[in-house]
Amino acid sequence: MAKHGRKSNDSSRRQRIKAHLNSAKAGADPGTLRYVGGEAPAATLATLIEFGPLPGDYLATSFSDVDVGRTFQPTFNTLWLNVHGLENIEILKLIGQRFKLHPLVLEDILNTQQRPKVEQYPGYLYITARLMNWDADGVSGEQVSLIVGRGFVLTFQEKPSGTFAAIRDTLKNSESQIRKLGPDYLAYALLDKLVDRYFLVLEQLGERCEELDEAINSENQPEHMVEVQSLRRSLQQIKRSLWPMREMLNVLQRDDADFFHSETQLYLRDVYDHTVQSIETVEALREMISGLQEIYLSLQSQRLNEQMRLLTVITTIFMPLTLIAGIYGMNFDIMPELRWTYGYYAALGLMGCIAVFLGLFFWLRRWV
Amino acid sequence: MAKHGRKSNDSSRRQRIKAHLNSAKAGADPGTLRYVGGEAPAATLATLIEFGPLPGDYLATSFSDVDVGRTFQPTFNTLWLNVHGLENIEILKLIGQRFKLHPLVLEDILNTQQRPKVEQYPGYLYITARLMNWDADGVSGEQVSLIVGRGFVLTFQEKPSGTFAAIRDTLKNSESQIRKLGPDYLAYALLDKLVDRYFLVLEQLGERCEELDEAINSENQPEHMVEVQSLRRSLQQIKRSLWPMREMLNVLQRDDADFFHSETQLYLRDVYDHTVQSIETVEALREMISGLQEIYLSLQSQRLNEQMRLLTVITTIFMPLTLIAGIYGMNFDIMPELRWTYGYYAALGLMGCIAVFLGLFFWLRRWV
Amino acid sequence: MAKHGRKSNDSSRRQRIKAHLNSAKAGADPGTLRYVGGEAPAATLATLIEFGPLPGDYLATSFSDVDVGRTFQPTFNTLWLNVHGLENIEILKLIGQRFKLHPLVLEDILNTQQRPKVEQYPGYLYITARLMNWDADGVSGEQVSLIVGRGFVLTFQEKPSGTFAAIRDTLKNSESQIRKLGPDYLAYALLDKLVDRYFLVLEQLGERCEELDEAINSENQPEHMVEVQSLRRSLQQIKRSLWPMREMLNVLQRDDADFFHSETQLYLRDVYDHTVQSIETVEALREMISGLQEIYLSLQSQRLNEQMRLLTVITTIFMPLTLIAGIYGMNFDIMPELRWTYGYYAALGLMGCIAVFLGLFFWLRRWV
Amino acid sequence: MAKHGRKSNDSSRRQRIKAHLNSAKAGADPGTLRYVGGEAPAATLATLIEFGPLPGDYLATSFSDVDVGRTFQPTFNTLWLNVHGLENIEILKLIGQRFKLHPLVLEDILNTQQRPKVEQYPGYLYITARLMNWDADGVSGEQVSLIVGRGFVLTFQEKPSGTFAAIRDTLKNSESQIRKLGPDYLAYALLDKLVDRYFLVLEQLGERCEELDEAINSENQPEHMVEVQSLRRSLQQIKRSLWPMREMLNVLQRDDADFFHSETQLYLRDVYDHTVQSIETVEALREMISGLQEIYLSLQSQRLNEQMRLLTVITTIFMPLTLIAGIYGMNFDIMPELRWTYGYYAALGLMGCIAVFLGLFFWLRRWV
Amino acid sequence: MAKHGRKSNDSSRRQRIKAHLNSAKAGADPGTLRYVGGEAPAATLATLIEFGPLPGDYLATSFSDVDVGRTFQPTFNTLWLNVHGLENIEILKLIGQRFKLHPLVLEDILNTQQRPKVEQYPGYLYITARLMNWDADGVSGEQVSLIVGRGFVLTFQEKPSGTFAAIRDTLKNSESQIRKLGPDYLAYALLDKLVDRYFLVLEQLGERCEELDEAINSENQPEHMVEVQSLRRSLQQIKRSLWPMREMLNVLQRDDADFFHSETQLYLRDVYDHTVQSIETVEALREMISGLQEIYLSLQSQRLNEQMRLLTVITTIFMPLTLIAGIYGMNFDIMPELRWTYGYYAALGLMGCIAVFLGLFFWLRRWV
Repeated sequence: MAKHGRKSNDSSRRQRIKAHLNSAKAGADPGTLRYVGGEAPAATLATLIEFGPLPGDYLATSFSDVDVGRTFQPTFNTLWLNVHGLENIEILKLIGQRFKLHPLVLEDILNTQQRPKVEQYPGYLYITARLMNWDADGVSGEQVSLIVGRGFVLTFQEKPSGTFAAIRDTLKNSESQIRKLGPDYLAYALLDKLVDRYFLVLEQLGERCEELDEAINSENQPEHMVEVQSLRRSLQQIKRSLWPMREMLNVLQRDDADFFHSETQLYLRDVYDHTVQSIETVEALREMISGLQEIYLSLQSQRLNEQMRLLTVITTIFMPLTLIAGIYGMNFDIMPELRWTYGYYAALGLMGCIAVFLGLFFWLRRWV
Repeated sequence: MAKHGRKSNDSSRRQRIKAHLNSAKAGADPGTLRYVGGEAPAATLATLIEFGPLPGDYLATSFSDVDVGRTFQPTFNTLWLNVHGLENIEILKLIGQRFKLHPLVLEDILNTQQRPKVEQYPGYLYITARLMNWDADGVSGEQVSLIVGRGFVLTFQEKPSGTFAAIRDTLKNSESQIRKLGPDYLAYALLDKLVDRYFLVLEQLGERCEELDEAINSENQPEHMVEVQSLRRSLQQIKRSLWPMREMLNVLQRDDADFFHSETQLYLRDVYDHTVQSIETVEALREMISGLQEIYLSLQSQRLNEQMRLLTVITTIFMPLTLIAGIYGMNFDIMPELRWTYGYYAALGLMGCIAVFLGLFFWLRRWV
Repeated sequence: MAKHGRKSNDSSRRQRIKAHLNSAKAGADPGTLRYVGGEAPAATLATLIEFGPLPGDYLATSFSDVDVGRTFQPTFNTLWLNVHGLENIEILKLIGQRFKLHPLVLEDILNTQQRPKVEQYPGYLYITARLMNWDADGVSGEQVSLIVGRGFVLTFQEKPSGTFAAIRDTLKNSESQIRKLGPDYLAYALLDKLVDRYFLVLEQLGERCEELDEAINSENQPEHMVEVQSLRRSLQQIKRSLWPMREMLNVLQRDDADFFHSETQLYLRDVYDHTVQSIETVEALREMISGLQEIYLSLQSQRLNEQMRLLTVITTIFMPLTLIAGIYGMNFDIMPELRWTYGYYAALGLMGCIAVFLGLFFWLRRWV
Repeated sequence: MAKHGRKSNDSSRRQRIKAHLNSAKAGADPGTLRYVGGEAPAATLATLIEFGPLPGDYLATSFSDVDVGRTFQPTFNTLWLNVHGLENIEILKLIGQRFKLHPLVLEDILNTQQRPKVEQYPGYLYITARLMNWDADGVSGEQVSLIVGRGFVLTFQEKPSGTFAAIRDTLKNSESQIRKLGPDYLAYALLDKLVDRYFLVLEQLGERCEELDEAINSENQPEHMVEVQSLRRSLQQIKRSLWPMREMLNVLQRDDADFFHSETQLYLRDVYDHTVQSIETVEALREMISGLQEIYLSLQSQRLNEQMRLLTVITTIFMPLTLIAGIYGMNFDIMPELRWTYGYYAALGLMGCIAVFLGLFFWLRRWV
Repeated sequence: MAKHGRKSNDSSRRQRIKAHLNSAKAGADPGTLRYVGGEAPAATLATLIEFGPLPGDYLATSFSDVDVGRTFQPTFNTLWLNVHGLENIEILKLIGQRFKLHPLVLEDILNTQQRPKVEQYPGYLYITARLMNWDADGVSGEQVSLIVGRGFVLTFQEKPSGTFAAIRDTLKNSESQIRKLGPDYLAYALLDKLVDRYFLVLEQLGERCEELDEAINSENQPEHMVEVQSLRRSLQQIKRSLWPMREMLNVLQRDDADFFHSETQLYLRDVYDHTVQSIETVEALREMISGLQEIYLSLQSQRLNEQMRLLTVITTIFMPLTLIAGIYGMNFDIMPELRWTYGYYAALGLMGCIAVFLGLFFWLRRWV
């Protein structure tokens, strides 16, 4: 599994590079929209939730067809449009037109290998974040794009993940904070969910570390070392996406363009604190993994020592005995001891004494 | 014990993550107050101390019931309300109402896994600090929240710890600085106590390091390595809470919102210096622990060398002797030496000479 | 190959130093133009592309002769002059005169060992970048100089590389962005191509890393270690040129001298993001290579352990058997066992028992 | 000695923590003055030197009694009051009163575990520095406090050290710069002396490193490794006090409060340069010590290799010979070689050939 | 040689410290001028070159006597006074008087252990740089002081080095840039020469690294490790002087005091770029040396493995054979095999089979 996990990380990196190269090879003209990612894009489904502060102000509609979307007019004044699956580029273009998005924003939505960032465009903020997953193949990240404007929030996911289901449920409740505080609070709630996923993935990684710790202490096998390296790489990958997440949230909590109310900014400061906490957990796990590695190497060396000690003890005890047996196996004509009545027993006794003496010697030096 | 300590650190980390996930899973709506921490919350007891600069201006009252607190009116104009145990959320809500605290502040008080920080709210400063402990299970930290307003100080602890008892006694003395200089000096005195705990824990860690140092020098066992890693992790944990403590005190000593008088700020600079000193002690201990590890590994390697040397000496001495015995044990018809009268003694003599010669050789090379 | 690659890096470094020394020895007067680089300069060919926003506004001319260039007058108002091969210094001087370039700029174009940088001169920006290559000999970089002025872009390459061919094709298309947005967008497109080469080289390096990973896991040979070091050095080399590239692009995207329109600056921010992404890939590969090294060393140590274990098992089993054979090979007159009818079989049986017992012992300790 | 040195460092650290805890335990009220340090304070002696620019303007008086000091009136207008030994707190209080020192300053003078720092108070600058010593027990630092006001310099040392004797002599000479340039130049001269001590200690450490280098190269013993760690810790200790010294001098040389004339600040820049130079020496010694450690480990491993090689050579040569002897010691009825006239010599000859052949083999592989 | 080199570095460090201590011990009064350096100062020779922009405006005069210098009046309005050898302090004092240099400047010229720096004094800039050398004893640096004023440049070297000879020749040529652009361009040309020396020394170091690389790959000897450490230290030394050089040039290229024309500052930016390039070469060599060390250790470990493998193979093959020989050497009365006609050949055959089988076994496991 360790092997598997490592491969997966590598191939994720390679997919990322390849995806980029594909987009690059396709032509120097960056105006053409094209999906750029590791795997084939999932089918597109857009879900529009309209809501207002009043109890009845809630309406959810789903689109998977461009033509329906083209003529649709919303009923309430606050919108959350969630799109998952980036296959249908026409729908994205339509959304781009209706919300007046810059071509580079649409490109970045389709290029799912972005680092988390926040970019300000006239009329809206464009936020890229990553949704973390940990499975048998290791850590993988999915790109989630958020666009926060006045009165609307757009979210774009690579595939349906269920992460935002709880928020959708909360939105139906007219007493919820989101209904009261509007789209910027909704954006905060979505980001909060994404940051929580890091905690979840880190907990799973932490558990794997502990299992590995026990495995290393009970048995010393090269696969452990390979898995230690694999875990280290997973952590590195999480860190690489967590650091820009933190930076992005730091920018948001100080947002000068007034897309977030000062009240919501207090909550963003809270999410920002969570990323800081996650980064500390990452650092703690890195230390733990380094420790694992050092314990592994020290135990390996310890086992070498043990074998060496056994070999030395055995050799040191048996060599003199074998010599004695060899001496009395010599064929000299005149060897008086051979004629003694108790010569044989004397020789055996001498061997016994030497064995006991050397045994004691090693026992006192704590070698056995 | 080492093992134990390590487990404990890990489980503390995991509890922290789990606690966070619990709070996260509970719902997207952050408005609901809920205790979030590793263990079950302790029973709540609020102690109110009112005081003024005059000798008789001192009154202490305890509450564990919400209704009593609801109607209580203080007598003197400076208050210190200390709450330990976070079970009774109603009392916290009541305090929140009477002192006009922001909902996020109450949440942070109940979420006992915060990093030390200071946040300014209208009318008061919210400070989170950690109270360090070191026992057989390793380092653990308890959250202490301080709220410093004009005329009042509120403190919230996870459980009764006795750390502030000395300050309570000092307060009874009308000549004490706290009575004279008011709530900001009281807050300083409380923070000073918390920082002193770091010194105490570091001293205990330092003693453990020295014991381990002696243990490593007298015996080489894999558990030592495991404990070295455990100590390293404990230090890492202390560092992770000390660094934000320092930052927090740095902010306080430059407090622009005038919750601290310039005279008290001089004292805060002193506490700040203590955190800097603690951080240096942490660094010194880290260096010491790294040294321990290197000495451990070098001694392990040294012992391997010693065993190897013994093995080599034994083998090198006995192999030629055994060969001679083997040669004179051969059954050739014509082997003149076997017929010599003193052949046997000559053979024994030859063996003796070789043994002495090789012994001298190794003695001169300082191998024995 | 590994060896080869390493040599190549070294010699590239040495060529760089030597090239510099040659230029330095030649005289203290820096006013004289002279080619300074690792290899002999390639023959010079200048290609001038003139274009405008209208469909027919496109004209390409090639020069390899100074006299032709001296009197040439362009037809359209936007120029891209691409020069490859730096042998013919007269052509460069002529270009310098006609575009009013500072002598130091010409010198830097000819000294092909510059770090990527951007320098502002009155009337134009001077940009140095590197075009990365990875072949059997390792990583090598070629200098590409860009000069961006109002209405013209000049590019200077060490030798023809084909990197800009796609852009030349795009230019012919009057619908392309470059034709519409002018010389600054052209400069962006050129830089974008150069940054894409880093992705390509990093992908190749990543593949080599994976091959090496498999090789190390299947066989343990010192050449692997040498190649690990060689890959590490290649990465270091890429990093050394990527970091100033990033810095240079960072300066360009904030260009205060208005050589780039704000629209083009959005695109430069995109290229800047690509360099950041490349740097992260470099860091990930560095981590991977460190991991390879640790796995290599741990496997080496593992194999030592295995050999040791086999040696110990063999020695421990055979030494007692050999002693027994030695004992019954002694020539004492009175050795009752020798007279027993089944003595020989008893001895063989004893040997068998000991062998089985020790075999079981090692099997239980998981040594065999 | 190494051991000793290490202990000493540790105990110095522990004393520091204990001293702090003592002061902390004593009560929350920081108003009470109390000596806080590792050892018992030395007896107090105050020496007052009054001087002016004229040849006769010099007067030195000593006090060890509070009452004498209470009524004393100085004759000349520039004062240097040097106090060594911090036992008599009454004298310090008196000085505090007469020079209007803040209570925290007196506390810091008595708490001899401060980091070097400079603090500005109304009317004077308070400077803490450390006087370094290196003896058989390792590095130790003594606190020296300087207070620079208009017309006076106060210095407080833990015990008499003789470091300032040369300055006292210079002061008697009316032509000296100190007499001419006044108290700020005096403060500079004192700080210069303290920084020079770092050079002295670093030179001694450097000599110890070189001795250790030779010892490691001639013999490989675990104590060397322990001492390497001890030296590393000593350097770490020096660094920990040098860095704040540098920072402090940096603040002084830019002193905005005009306690130092611009002319004296030029000289302070010189002392500042010396601390930078010392820090570089510390870094160079750290590198050297790391190198020592790596050489130690590599030599240890080298010796293991040598032993292994000898063992392998001996075993490989003797095993075949012993086998041959064993074969011709077998008791088969029909073994034709045993009947040959020169069988014995043939066997010996075969053994000799094998031994020579294997010896040559190892000699060619450079194993012997 | 390695050893030698290391000693030399150490002793250079020690000389530096000692030189400093000598100067410090000499008295607290820094007003007295005294040569402070590692070796005895060389005899002083001052060479004055006067020049102007016109062809004939060139005159060179040499002084080694104070009295001649006292009354000398220059003919042309631009001066370059080069002094090498710092023995004759009277000449320096005279120069100090005539060019109105601050006493600290003269002191710094004589204290040849300064870090490179630039200091602004009224009327001139004082620049300290180092001239690098690499010989059999390692890296050594010589201090060169430059003073750039309006209309004059003064240079002070520890001993004649020939580094500036080329510039002297260029000066004679009235067409040279220096003659046209004046003293600031001259200072640039001198600094350029000094920076070029770093390139030269780095090239030599790089060649030594490559030789060592080959030596390590062909043979594994502890001296290699010692030399690796020595090279690392040399690099560290170069780095320590290159970093402040870079900083100094950075200050100069932004010189606010107008000692350098904006045209010359463009050239200084070029030299600054060279120091940046040198620092990168230093870093690359450091990486290479680290790699060498890791290859060395891995090869050492590899050789241990090889020896171990040979030992294991030999032991495993011969032990069973020796046992068989031992068994048939036993003296039991009834051992049927001994009576067989072909018993002896059967035993030899069994031995052969076992040897072949084990040989195949190890060959398949790639141990031989």
